[in-house]
Amino acid sequence: MSIVNHCFRLASRPVGLPKRSDWTYGAEPVREPGEGELLVEVLCVSLDPAMRGWMNEAKSYMPPVGIGEVMRAGGAGRVVSSRHPGFAPGDHVTGSFGVQRYAVVDGKGVLKVDPAFASLPVYLGTLGAPGMTAYFGLLDTGQAKAGDTVVVSAAAGAVGMVVGQIAKIKGCRAVGIAGGPEKCRFIVQELGFDAAVDYKAEDVKEALRQHCPRGLDVYFDNVGGDILDAALTRLARGARIVICGAISQYNRTGPAKGPSNYLALLVQRASMKGMLVFDYADRYAEAAREMAGWMAAGKLKSCEDVVKGLETFPDALLKLFRGENLGKLVLQVAPASAPETRSAALP
Amino acid sequence: MSIVNHCFRLASRPVGLPKRSDWTYGAEPVREPGEGELLVEVLCVSLDPAMRGWMNEAKSYMPPVGIGEVMRAGGAGRVVSSRHPGFAPGDHVTGSFGVQRYAVVDGKGVLKVDPAFASLPVYLGTLGAPGMTAYFGLLDTGQAKAGDTVVVSAAAGAVGMVVGQIAKIKGCRAVGIAGGPEKCRFIVQELGFDAAVDYKAEDVKEALRQHCPRGLDVYFDNVGGDILDAALTRLARGARIVICGAISQYNRTGPAKGPSNYLALLVQRASMKGMLVFDYADRYAEAAREMAGWMAAGKLKSCEDVVKGLETFPDALLKLFRGENLGKLVLQVAPASAPETRSAALP
Repeated sequence: MSIVNHCFRLASRPVGLPKRSDWTYGAEPVREPGEGELLVEVLCVSLDPAMRGWMNEAKSYMPPVGIGEVMRAGGAGRVVSSRHPGFAPGDHVTGSFGVQRYAVVDGKGVLKVDPAFASLPVYLGTLGAPGMTAYFGLLDTGQAKAGDTVVVSAAAGAVGMVVGQIAKIKGCRAVGIAGGPEKCRFIVQELGFDAAVDYKAEDVKEALRQHCPRGLDVYFDNVGGDILDAALTRLARGARIVICGAISQYNRTGPAKGPSNYLALLVQRASMKGMLVFDYADRYAEAAREMAGWMAAGKLKSCEDVVKGLETFPDALLKLFRGENLGKLVLQVAPASAPETRSAALP
Repeated sequence: MSIVNHCFRLASRPVGLPKRSDWTYGAEPVREPGEGELLVEVLCVSLDPAMRGWMNEAKSYMPPVGIGEVMRAGGAGRVVSSRHPGFAPGDHVTGSFGVQRYAVVDGKGVLKVDPAFASLPVYLGTLGAPGMTAYFGLLDTGQAKAGDTVVVSAAAGAVGMVVGQIAKIKGCRAVGIAGGPEKCRFIVQELGFDAAVDYKAEDVKEALRQHCPRGLDVYFDNVGGDILDAALTRLARGARIVICGAISQYNRTGPAKGPSNYLALLVQRASMKGMLVFDYADRYAEAAREMAGWMAAGKLKSCEDVVKGLETFPDALLKLFRGENLGKLVLQVAPASAPETRSAALP
């Protein structure tokens, strides 16, 4: 019996914000897994700002998605059949499964997860790549230590919300920059940040001056642009800027806005360092164990913004660039209106 | 008997390139040194790009020169009289003496130098702050190690020429970026750099691709602007960018040009770090000893561009911003046309 897949394939390289026509959406048969492969029914697709970069032709830290290829995406699902010794039907797994209903993959980068401990969207967020990014970016790249003032942008997003909470766990002052009163209220009242700056309503420089009287020891940047420039004006001596992303710049049609105030690095003997979570793959298990412990102890909260229906992918992705998501944005494959089926029931 | 001083005092904060009218030049009596002070006859004034920054009102790593104050500058001279236990008349010294003929200073930051080993201009260059900047910037901030490809901008300047030579001494490949064929010939043929890029005649990105096939491990930046952006496109994995200065930006009337390609830091897991030589003051002696050893062994060459006549200061300073100096730019206090006098005879 053949299974029908539905998938989004890249049709053209977007100029500015991606449009629906930059992908084709269609049905096609699923091939049988070969030796060493497994067939996964994708239940959740991870929507991440980095996906915009993968659509560009430019060489980056991984090759671009080719025209005609299934759009690359992280995901979580259930093993349907397996010719890989490490996986059995019924296993719940995460991996790079693409924007599609079924994926045939080798085991590389596929991790088994326990849906009894946390829901699949959590494994794509706080216990997945965004959480690992926050953990290693803050503690390894950013070298945050007790007593530091840590500021994070996109603070109500998948990475930012974890950065601020780990900062608190480690004895730092945590200040988040986010857009709008709901997100600002959320990070302070729900997640325990010390303060929030609403960049849509406040002068960020002035607000940082007020909330960080001794300057920023660590600035964890997810956005770039004017907010990075504002943070540069308030660095403490020896500050570390973690360059994790630059969501404000990904859809520009011209060159990125470089940080005009970068000479603050010289004045403050500060550094700006890029990080990619993949470099820490051999330490994911260690970090995930510690994070899971914090979650179990109630010290680390997670929030997911789940959009339903694979076919809504192009619009759902734009929520990221419009700043509409609160917490980790996840696309649930089964539509909201679908009858309750095995594949729609998220653990 | 009273001694007459001549000095340049800051009259106004420049907009763009400094003009002669941004200073007043005049004669005034020299006061007697008090307890703990010494009177120095300044023989050479160090001309440095950083002086432009000190003329701005903005807060930086040291306070700006106040309107009406003697223009700040490093210098070298001879002690005339001393009420400081560490210095005696006839001692040759370097320190922050200002753009003037005589300085009364406390001993802070004043160092005795031996004119029998090297000329006073060398103590303002390769054995002074620029040499220390090169040494600590390359080896400490930049963490250069044997086998690395090191690229330096303003490579025929006081700092750059030393960076490339230390890189060679340490077993690195050294590539310099400089303006014009004379400077490029100089750094390769006289100083032993492996290659030079003439930014006035070549496409810097392409030239770096050609001369650094495995990418840049260390980029030592003295210039900022388009050259920093070009270097960012050619980083090796884990590259270190040393932010030492940004001479292309100091006379801009608007904000500095931020590096548009800064997201290369993320793609290449690279860092950009600012350094100030003053932070290494307690290790100057150690570095100077090693550098003097290299000079004595013929491994480290020094070059000074000496302009004569204190009164030419405003024009002489502009040579830096026009890229007209080869090596360390020094202002000899006595005019070229002056009769040979004690104070005009440079050791």
